[in-house]
Amino acid sequence: MKSEFELIERLKQLLPPISSQVELGIGDDAATVHWNEKRILTTVDSLVEGIHFDWKFCRPSEVGKKAMNANLSDIAAMGGKPRFALIALGLPISWDQEKIEGMYRGIAEVCGERGVDVVGGNISRNPERLWISITVLGDPANGVLKRSGAQVGDVIFLSGTVGEAAAGLELLRSQPERARQQFPNLVRRYTEGHAQIELGQLLGKKPKVHSLIDVSDGLSSELWHLSKASQVEVVIQANQLWVSEELQRASVIFSQSPLRWQLSGGEDYELLGTCSSESWKVLHQECESLKIPIRVIGEVARAGAGVYLKNESGHLEPLPALGWNHLST
Amino acid sequence: MKSEFELIERLKQLLPPISSQVELGIGDDAATVHWNEKRILTTVDSLVEGIHFDWKFCRPSEVGKKAMNANLSDIAAMGGKPRFALIALGLPISWDQEKIEGMYRGIAEVCGERGVDVVGGNISRNPERLWISITVLGDPANGVLKRSGAQVGDVIFLSGTVGEAAAGLELLRSQPERARQQFPNLVRRYTEGHAQIELGQLLGKKPKVHSLIDVSDGLSSELWHLSKASQVEVVIQANQLWVSEELQRASVIFSQSPLRWQLSGGEDYELLGTCSSESWKVLHQECESLKIPIRVIGEVARAGAGVYLKNESGHLEPLPALGWNHLST
Repeated sequence: MKSEFELIERLKQLLPPISSQVELGIGDDAATVHWNEKRILTTVDSLVEGIHFDWKFCRPSEVGKKAMNANLSDIAAMGGKPRFALIALGLPISWDQEKIEGMYRGIAEVCGERGVDVVGGNISRNPERLWISITVLGDPANGVLKRSGAQVGDVIFLSGTVGEAAAGLELLRSQPERARQQFPNLVRRYTEGHAQIELGQLLGKKPKVHSLIDVSDGLSSELWHLSKASQVEVVIQANQLWVSEELQRASVIFSQSPLRWQLSGGEDYELLGTCSSESWKVLHQECESLKIPIRVIGEVARAGAGVYLKNESGHLEPLPALGWNHLST
Repeated sequence: MKSEFELIERLKQLLPPISSQVELGIGDDAATVHWNEKRILTTVDSLVEGIHFDWKFCRPSEVGKKAMNANLSDIAAMGGKPRFALIALGLPISWDQEKIEGMYRGIAEVCGERGVDVVGGNISRNPERLWISITVLGDPANGVLKRSGAQVGDVIFLSGTVGEAAAGLELLRSQPERARQQFPNLVRRYTEGHAQIELGQLLGKKPKVHSLIDVSDGLSSELWHLSKASQVEVVIQANQLWVSEELQRASVIFSQSPLRWQLSGGEDYELLGTCSSESWKVLHQECESLKIPIRVIGEVARAGAGVYLKNESGHLEPLPALGWNHLST
């Protein structure tokens, strides 16, 4: 079993077939189920000490914010509106009440801002490390914004900037004090995250947005998810990716192109999707008027499966999935 | 912070106030939220290797069944009907695909029997031990069957037998082969569990059932939960607790009264509740005709807070909460 995704596929086969009440089951950012005449969007995600965060670099409130944002991002990736959350905690032997309270203050801040009610949870022991799983329930978009809906001829859009969380982590690891002083945005991208809920809901109202996914595993990996799920080949242009001033400076420090972070770094929680080129014009204008940064970074070239990077000279090179594999660490 | 319950209370205070959409939030077996004109019951629970189960004594499919049953029991304790589940897994470094698949076969069996759709999940690393959290969504009863509804004068009823899971574990620990051969029921009570969903739904339809809780932390602890939440003193009679033939035999082996297991043993997933004595007659008849074992074990004596055990000679002695504290292990 090489990857998380193969294991999920295998385990899915062992489960009973889903009922007609399930509109979208295992395999996307969130599930959509029918509840009488209504529909519910639901998702679960976990943050594990030493795997997804390190107390050496992260303050307790930041861990709480990130745990919540990672989950809310899965709702945003379906064009939904988050409403309720449940929290399953695993406390290590050496747990520290101030840390846990700090984490909850971070959770509370995000929930307060986003109008999410924490309605339940569970506390267990997990002797070696803190575990936090959050389940979120939300209102789905009118349609279902799956990763499998990309159509040949669509433009590929991406919100904001990617690679920043990964650069933030690398800076924190090598020089934590300087990182917080000189690269506050990159650090915050990594330590807190930010879910694109407003943009997700805006996209959820556009019938011509054909597919959507959030960038949690890294851009190249997400492009592969879109490609495989939609059975299309996608081409992106490296020079269409925005590079922030801080990312530019970080790339100088590490003597490398920002592109490595942009293609392989995870946890940026930006939204990646596809729509027809006509609807892009309208969408772009609307986002501009709302000051939401979003840009076309490529196109859905043809049926098939593959991800290609068009470099500055117009040359196409195959782009492997460079991002996060949850089972490789 | 002495216990899980104090910590939950503290963390709850840090969260924003819940909105009017939440009918019942943190603190009961499951939460009830409004979803447009409908209502949803939701709960999360975790099973952790080495804390809640041990591969030495438990087969993979049993772990899967127990993880599911523990969650379904929280839905039963609210009189609800389970519908959808999400599973968050944490895989240790030394994970074994056969074990995980076996566990999913157990999950699949319970979900198939109970008509529950597994609609999503998440896989992470948890290097030292397997972690499994399950979130369940269900249809609530017409009313809300809280642990806080017990009324003075109510009878206290308990389904089936308790203490069996704890005895099963003790047998497995001391003589695993003999345990499986000679005490198959006790072993199954511990290794698989069984959620009282039919009974829960039946109780959920009775307007005169005033309170309900499932016996997951141990009878004495659950009585204390009822007592504190309802602000009443409760009295139970030791001789009203059923003792199965296997529990009787186990108590001989360990030279002790079955009462210790019955009062302190957790994970039996029976239902404990209160109702008026008139409605008990109807309820009892109905359960008898459906062959659901249920019995009156005591009464809600007066306002206050306290749990008392009436022994064979009619003497009352205070009963402390002897059950499981999730933070003491």
